[in-house]
Amino acid sequence: MVSKRYPTSIEVARLAGVSQSAVSRTFTPGASVSARTREKVLAAAETLGFQPSLIPKIMLTDRSGLVALVVGGLENAFYARVVQSLAACLREAGNQIVLVPVDSDYTLDAVAARLAQYRVDAIVSALAVLSQDAAETLSASRIPVVSFNTPVTAARVGSVGSDNALGGRQAARLLHARDVRHPAFVAGPAISPASTERLTGFREALREAGRPEPRVGGSAYTYEGGAEAATQLCAEGPVDGIFCANDLCALGTIDALRRAGRRVPEDVRVIGYDDIPAAGWGGYDLTSFDQDVPALVEATLAMLARMSATDAAAGERVLIPPRLTERGSTRA
Amino acid sequence: MVSKRYPTSIEVARLAGVSQSAVSRTFTPGASVSARTREKVLAAAETLGFQPSLIPKIMLTDRSGLVALVVGGLENAFYARVVQSLAACLREAGNQIVLVPVDSDYTLDAVAARLAQYRVDAIVSALAVLSQDAAETLSASRIPVVSFNTPVTAARVGSVGSDNALGGRQAARLLHARDVRHPAFVAGPAISPASTERLTGFREALREAGRPEPRVGGSAYTYEGGAEAATQLCAEGPVDGIFCANDLCALGTIDALRRAGRRVPEDVRVIGYDDIPAAGWGGYDLTSFDQDVPALVEATLAMLARMSATDAAAGERVLIPPRLTERGSTRA
Repeated sequence: MVSKRYPTSIEVARLAGVSQSAVSRTFTPGASVSARTREKVLAAAETLGFQPSLIPKIMLTDRSGLVALVVGGLENAFYARVVQSLAACLREAGNQIVLVPVDSDYTLDAVAARLAQYRVDAIVSALAVLSQDAAETLSASRIPVVSFNTPVTAARVGSVGSDNALGGRQAARLLHARDVRHPAFVAGPAISPASTERLTGFREALREAGRPEPRVGGSAYTYEGGAEAATQLCAEGPVDGIFCANDLCALGTIDALRRAGRRVPEDVRVIGYDDIPAAGWGGYDLTSFDQDVPALVEATLAMLARMSATDAAAGERVLIPPRLTERGSTRA
Repeated sequence: MVSKRYPTSIEVARLAGVSQSAVSRTFTPGASVSARTREKVLAAAETLGFQPSLIPKIMLTDRSGLVALVVGGLENAFYARVVQSLAACLREAGNQIVLVPVDSDYTLDAVAARLAQYRVDAIVSALAVLSQDAAETLSASRIPVVSFNTPVTAARVGSVGSDNALGGRQAARLLHARDVRHPAFVAGPAISPASTERLTGFREALREAGRPEPRVGGSAYTYEGGAEAATQLCAEGPVDGIFCANDLCALGTIDALRRAGRRVPEDVRVIGYDDIPAAGWGGYDLTSFDQDVPALVEATLAMLARMSATDAAAGERVLIPPRLTERGSTRA
C-alpha cells in the first residue's frame, strides 16, 4: 500500500491527545465538540498542516465541486481571457477548475470518460469548434455541458455565445459608410459556426446596402492564415474593405497588406472580431468587436446553475450582442 | 441527501442481471470475472453511460492524479503557452490539471488549504512572482511544489526557470556589437526575480564591454508599462538601445518610440524576452529570447517525478539557457 502523503486525522488526534472522533467532529460544521477539545485539535492540525479531506463527501454525494473547462488554443488572447474570467468566477462560486486542453488529434471520448471518473459537476467547452458528435459523447455521461460560442443540440447541452450575425451586419454597415466598393471576408475554419454566422450577417447587410457580394478567403483563426488569405485576395482582384473572422486573422491581414504596399485605412479598411489587447496596440489600431466577456461568463454561470439540478437549460442558446470598437483601421 | 447524478454500479448490475460485486470486479484490473458476465456488464455500462469512480481509490491512497497549476496573467502569451504545454504533458502522464488563477489580491493560504482538501499530488506555480511566504504556506501542507521562473527556498519546493542572467548578458553583447552608446533597461515589477536577474546580467556584460551603466525605467510586465517607461526614458536623456524585461514591455516600447518619432532599429535598438508570437509579427519584428518552453516543461515534469516519492528535489534549481532570436528590431 502506498503511504499516505497528507497528515491524517489519526496523527492529529495523537498529537492533540484526543479521540479521532473528536477530530472528525471539530471539522464537521454543526457537530458537537467542547471548546477546549476544539482548541487542542485546531492547534495540532495547524502544527501538522492537516486539512480535512473532501473526498469522502464527494463519494457520498457525487458532487465534486470540480468543473471541467475544455479549451483549444490559449494562444488566442480571447480564449486566454475567457478561461481566466470563467475560472475566477467559478472559483468565487466555490468550484475548482479542471483544465482540459484539447487539440484536434485528441478524441473527446477519452476526455469525457476520464472526467466522469472524477465525478465532475459540469463541463464548459470553450473550443472554437465543438462537433455535434463530441457534444453527444459528453452528454452521454450525464454531465451538463455548456458550449461556449458553438451552438450544438444534445441532451444536457446548452450554448452561450456572441451574436455573430449581428456583428457581421454591423461590420457591413461600417464598411458601407466608408463607401467600400470591393468588400472581402477572411474566414476561420470552414467548420466553425462562429465564422459562418459572421459571414452570413456580413453578406446580408452588404446586400441590403446595395453593395457587391464579398469575396471570401482564408480557413484558419491564425495570424499566418489571415496573412495568406489577404495576400491571395489582393492578388485575385480589387479589395478596399476586409472583415476578418477574428483579430488574429485581421492582424495578419494588416501586415500582409502593408507588405503589398497597401495602406490601412487609406487603401483598405480592416475589421476584426474579439477585441484582443493587440487590436489596441499602436502598430495595428484595429477596429474590432468586443464579445463582452463578462456578459458571456455571467450567462455561462447562470446556465450552469439552471442545469445543476435539472435538465431545464438543455437546448437553450443565449446570445450576447457584441460591441463595436472603432479604431484607426476604419478611419474615414 | 442529494440524489446521485452519475449512473451507479447498482443500476449497471440491475440492467446486466448480475451482482454488484460482478460489476466491481469487471472494472478492477486483474480481478476474476467470466467472459460472459464481463460482456453483459460492459454492455449495460455503455447503455447507461457508466464510468467507475476514481474517488474511492483517491480516499484509500491519498493520490488523486490531480496536479494544480497556479497562474497569474494568461494575457501574457508566454504563460498561456506554458499552461497549455504543461497541461498537455501532465495529461499525457495520466494527470488531470486543476487550474488556479491567482491575482495579487488573492491569498495563497486559501488556495493551498482548498487544494489540500482535494488531495492534489503536486502544485506547479507559474506565477511571475511567488513570494517566499507563499511558498512556505504551500509547502506547509506537505504538497510538493515546483516554482516556475521564480527561485524560492522552502521544504518541498524546487524551481525551474530560464537562465535570465545569461539572457541579460547576451542582450548586452548584441547591443555592444551594434555600437549602442546609451543603453537602457525597461524592468518588470521590482519584486520579480526574473526581471532583476535579467538586469544583473545585462549590467555586468555592458560593464565588461566598457559600455556605460544602463538607465532603468518601468515596473510592470505589460504593454502599457513598457510604453510609459520608454516615453520617460526618452524624455530624460539620450537612448539608442533598450533591453526590455519581457516582450509585452518591448512592444509597448516600440510603439512609444515610434510615437516619439524615433525609428526602430535605425535610431533605437530594442530587445524583448519570451519570444511570444507577436514578436514575430510584421508590425514589430522584435528580437527576443526564446525561453525554450518544451525544455522548461520537461524539467518541471522531471522535478515533479523526483519529488513524488521523496523530498529529494526540494531546494533544487534548474536553469534552461534561453535562445536569442534576432529580428529586425536590432538590425545592423
